[in-house]
Formats: sequence, structure tokens, C-alpha cells
Amino acid sequence: MDNFVFYNPTQVVFGKNTIQKVGKLLNAHNIKKVLMVMGGGSIKKNGVYDEVVNSLKSSGIEFIEFSGVRPNPVLSHTREGIKLARENKVDAILAVGGGSVIDESKAIAAGFYMDDIWAAFENKFQIENALPLFTVLTLSATGSEMNPFAVLTNEEEKKKWAIYGPALFPVISIIDPSKQMTLPWRQTVNGAVDALSHIMEYYFMGTNEEVTLSINEALMNTIIKVTDKLKIDQDDYDSRSELDWAATLALNGLSGVALKGGDWATHGIEHAISALHPEVAHAEGLAIVFPAWIEYNKELNTSIFKRWAKNVWNSDSVESAIQKMKRKYSEWGAPISLSQVGITENEIEELANIALLGEGLGVLRELNKQDVISILKIAL
Amino acid sequence: MDNFVFYNPTQVVFGKNTIQKVGKLLNAHNIKKVLMVMGGGSIKKNGVYDEVVNSLKSSGIEFIEFSGVRPNPVLSHTREGIKLARENKVDAILAVGGGSVIDESKAIAAGFYMDDIWAAFENKFQIENALPLFTVLTLSATGSEMNPFAVLTNEEEKKKWAIYGPALFPVISIIDPSKQMTLPWRQTVNGAVDALSHIMEYYFMGTNEEVTLSINEALMNTIIKVTDKLKIDQDDYDSRSELDWAATLALNGLSGVALKGGDWATHGIEHAISALHPEVAHAEGLAIVFPAWIEYNKELNTSIFKRWAKNVWNSDSVESAIQKMKRKYSEWGAPISLSQVGITENEIEELANIALLGEGLGVLRELNKQDVISILKIAL
Repeated sequence: MDNFVFYNPTQVVFGKNTIQKVGKLLNAHNIKKVLMVMGGGSIKKNGVYDEVVNSLKSSGIEFIEFSGVRPNPVLSHTREGIKLARENKVDAILAVGGGSVIDESKAIAAGFYMDDIWAAFENKFQIENALPLFTVLTLSATGSEMNPFAVLTNEEEKKKWAIYGPALFPVISIIDPSKQMTLPWRQTVNGAVDALSHIMEYYFMGTNEEVTLSINEALMNTIIKVTDKLKIDQDDYDSRSELDWAATLALNGLSGVALKGGDWATHGIEHAISALHPEVAHAEGLAIVFPAWIEYNKELNTSIFKRWAKNVWNSDSVESAIQKMKRKYSEWGAPISLSQVGITENEIEELANIALLGEGLGVLRELNKQDVISILKIAL
Repeated sequence: MDNFVFYNPTQVVFGKNTIQKVGKLLNAHNIKKVLMVMGGGSIKKNGVYDEVVNSLKSSGIEFIEFSGVRPNPVLSHTREGIKLARENKVDAILAVGGGSVIDESKAIAAGFYMDDIWAAFENKFQIENALPLFTVLTLSATGSEMNPFAVLTNEEEKKKWAIYGPALFPVISIIDPSKQMTLPWRQTVNGAVDALSHIMEYYFMGTNEEVTLSINEALMNTIIKVTDKLKIDQDDYDSRSELDWAATLALNGLSGVALKGGDWATHGIEHAISALHPEVAHAEGLAIVFPAWIEYNKELNTSIFKRWAKNVWNSDSVESAIQKMKRKYSEWGAPISLSQVGITENEIEELANIALLGEGLGVLRELNKQDVISILKIAL
């Protein structure tokens, strides 16, 4: 087993009726004034907004509302948030929303102390200083609620890049699965696909890391099982809560222990897709690209692909496992080809160019432009 | 799924050649002077002592040595440690050893700020204040390196009780599996049995907590698999490191998520055994009591016992799984009956009395004296 460091100080407060605790939890951390970061308004429909605001008021926490975070959060809006946080001299950021809201909140929390937050994305240094971040999660998918990563899109430069650092771990994340029961089915599926993809980015780097690999299989199998159950009954609280906890564990460090940091080429290619086509959700891009990436790479590290086929898809061959995976994604309603989301062969070269803007794409196989083009062609 | 709070801020630094980092890690936390707590001297044979001392010296960390922690650490020795820590005004405790050394170190760290550390054991309040604790683990078994629990024996009162609290999480734990390759086989087995027992204390409280149950199965299966491999080749670093990481995860909070705090009756009964017979190692007591506890309780929560039989022991009946478990423990060289460790029927009543000294024994079934006697008779 490779050496590793595991560290994750985020406190997760999980379950029904936990959102109403947010004010007291902030009190306990001596927070007086927060920037409350939000998305497009769904939290006003499902009651989360009212619960949060009532709790803040009754605990005497001052809050400045900052809404309008987009599904692929953008740099310009982040800069507005940083300005607002500074003008109001807040003590902390309170993210209320899904992974995009949390990611942008992390960038605001770090940017509060920096001249230019984008420089951190360009220069890839670790973030050591940020405002404390508290989150109320309303869509389990990205794992951002319990990790030190944030992804942001620079709209002008069409770059979708990441920052990380110990200061970006949320202090506390509140997850109430009952608030996710009214989500559109498409978003539930996106959460499941996103979580599965995070696990696979690590898993396929494996050799014999038995603890991590078998935990990852446990998580993948659970996600598939409970998503199937939710397809039949979206009000199944137990399945919803298992999906939500699995999505958190999928990217909180545990699933990557001793797996060389993961591959992440699929995410790199997907980031190009959603940079060029912001209407394609992150998880939809992953659902399209991952089967193609596996197909293209299955002759490398053969034993791990076979293990995955057997232990997750009960298949004797990788080829058949890929088919089962695509069938499952289709059953759930996720796209499994570029053409389904309106992307044609003409765009493939541009997508490859964007995907390769960062440094190094993939670890199991470091992809060059021709590799990316081949994978995208499989995905057509 | 039941509501839960997950919080574990301990940083684990895991792998080969990690012990030599201890001085720099202490420097980074601004620690100048530590009480170095140790056991009976094995660390002087396996090189760990020299590595730690060299690292402390080259980083300019002052250290006061305090050795002699016993396998079931005792209150009187803990009090000596507290006195020494105070006299020397140390900034932190550095535990170098196995679970017993770490447990006693936690009690020293907490006792540093208290009039009487045993009052915390008697009154079961949460420990909110303690000296920062750093550990170098030399025997993976108890999970103490990544949790907020400590168990201590009050020799005079023959009580083996626990304290817990957020202040007892180690700040950093260093685990170098290569240092465990020279352990006597018996201690490797004790580590495996201890870890399996921790998982089972939670697992049997389960109903449909799919994430936690399937992770626990992954951990149990891994522990059994790699212990079998180590029996053939104790120098198998990969298997050793998997065992060590599994033992840490077995009691770091993850395995207990949404499982109602676990049952812990088996541990309660075992604590009576090792309070009365300190020559019986903790894990040996668990190897003896757990099969009997399962036998006695298998008609409660039937589905979980059947699931365990199938997913861990590949058995159609719980009865057959218990037999496989006992056979496996025997193969490894662990005792599976009281008579094997020289305990006769005459002592059963006294053991039951001691086991019931604390408040409440067991959750799946809260055991009364007759229950404990029945379980111990099965274990004869």
C-alpha cells in the first residue's frame, strides 16, 4: 500500500430536522455575521430558506444574502461575493445549496484574504487561509460539503479549474436528506452519477489496496441499489439518506486512500464539455464520458477493470460491465452519448483543446490530444 | 437511517518511514516539550524508540520519558504520568506504543487539567479540555489512535471503565506498518480480533443502514483475508498495512454511523474478565465472549445476524457462521473458550457482578445478571 495522509476535520450533522440547528451551531463557534450564499431560488420553495433564516434570527446571527450562484459557478459572480463579504466585514460564509453554492462559497472564503482569487486557480498553490465556512447542503452530489476542493469556471477564458487546501474544509456541514425528497428526478440521478464517478476516478488506479477498494465497491453498490429504489419511490427516506451519505463519502478522502490521487481525466474532459456547453450538467457530462474512458483504457490495469466488472456489475467481462453501466444510466434517464446532448463530431477538436489547457490529463494513462479525441469519438 | 453527527479531526500519517517525521510535525504545531509515554520496552528492540528520539532531537523538541504502561493500563501509573507532566510543564503528550499507551496518554492529557482524573470515569462527563496528544502507533488494534475514547483500569476497585470527549482525539497519529512486522504472531491476531469485535459491536445493531453495513462487511472481510495472508507470511507489508488501516477505521466513527452507538455488552463482559485476570489480553477475552454473545442473541434482530452469516462467512445459517468464526479464531491461535485461559465455572458469578458494575450492559439486549451468566456458560 502506498503511503498516505488522511485528514478531514469537517463535522457532519446529518438527518431530519437538523437545519434548524444552524444558528446555535454558529453561536457555538462564536460567529456573529455571515454572508449567506445561495443559488437560484429552489430553497425558497422547499422550506430550507425559511428554516435557515428563522434559525439565524432566533440565534441573533446577522446575515447578508447573496444569491444567484449558477450550476457551474463562475468567477465574475464569485468576485461580487468577495466584495460583499468585505464590505460587510462578515465572520464566516454560510453556503445554503448544492455543490455549486458550496464551491463558490469556498472561493469567496479564500478570496476574502487574497488580491485575486483566480491567481490561486492559475498557480495551484494550497489555500492556507480562508473565512470559516458552514454549509447547509440541499443536493448531495459533489462531496464539496466534506472536502477541501472547489471548482470554478472562468467564463472569459473558458477554463473550469480547481483550488484546494486545508482551509477550504467546511467547519460544519448540515445534511437533511428529507429536504432532497422533492428534487427533480434528474437531479437525483445527477447526484448518483457524480458520486459514482468520484469513486471510479480513484478506484481504477487500484491494485491491491483491499480496504479502499472494498469500501469503494460497498459505496458503488449502495449508490446503484438505493438509486434504483428511489426511482420507484422518491419519498423513500432511508434510500435517500443512504445516497446522500454515500455521496459525501465518495469524495471526502476515504475513497482515495493510497490510490495515487486518482486519475481525473474523465473530469478534465467533462470540464471542457460544461465550459463550452454550460447547459450540460456536470454529472451528465460524466455519464457520457466515463463509459468511453473505461472502454479506451480497459487494457491498462486489466485486473482492476475486471474486479470492477465482477464486484459491481456481476459481469465476467469489462465490455459487458460497460454495457450494464450504460443501460443503468439510461434507465435512470442520464445521457450516455454526446449526440444526446446535441454535441457533434465538429466540436470534438475544440473540446480536446480545452480539456488539455490544464497541466496533465489523467494518471493511469496521461492523455494527449489524440487520446482525448478518441475517447470523445467513442462517446459520440 | 437514524440521525448522526460525524466528526473526526485526527490527522493520520500512514506508511513507511513516517516515524522520522514526528519532530517536524511537532514543530509545525509549535510544540516545544513533550511527555513521551511508553510501554514495556519493545520499542527499543524494533528501532521505533531510536527513530522517535533522533527525530525529536534533530527538531529541538525537549522530551521527558515516562515508560512502564501496562497492557491494561492502570490508574496509579496514570497518576504518576500526570504528576510528571505537571512538574515538567510539558506542552503536549507524545504516546509511542499500542492502544494501551495511547489510552493512558489520553487520561494523562485530560488529567493534566483536572483535580482527579478518575472522577471523569465515574461521572461519565465529556472531556472538553486536554493537552494536545500526538501518537506513534506500534500495534494496530484498539483504534485509539483515531478516536476520542480511553479505557483505564482502577486496580483497587477492579473497574475497567472508559472516558471520551472531543479533546481526546489525537492531533496526529503516525502509523508505520513496517514496524509491526516483527510483532509476535499472537499480538497480530489480537489486533485482528479486536478490530473485528469493534465492527461487530456496531454491526449487529443494524437494520438497513446500507452504507455503514456494507462498509463494515468490507472491513471484516478484509481483516479476515489479510490476517490469513499474514499467517503465511508475516513480512507481507501490503497485508500488514491493510490490517492496520482497517483496525483504525474499525473504531474511528465510520463503522458506527447511524448504528445507535453500538451494543458493547461483549466489551463490558470482557472488561470484567481482564479486570479479574489481567493476564488475559483484551482481544483474547473478546475472542472468547463474542461467539457466545452472538449465540445467545441470534434470535433478536435475526435479519442482521443472517446477513452477517452470508456476507462475511458465506454461510446459510448463523449457527454455521459462528462455527466458522470460532474455527478461524482457533486457526489463528486465539482462545475461544474460558477454559482455555484457565477460567472455571466457579468464577462466572463474580465476573457477572463485575460486568454489571457500570450502567447498562448492552443495547440490542440489555443484559441482566442471569443473561451474563448464561453467555459466560456458553463460553466455558
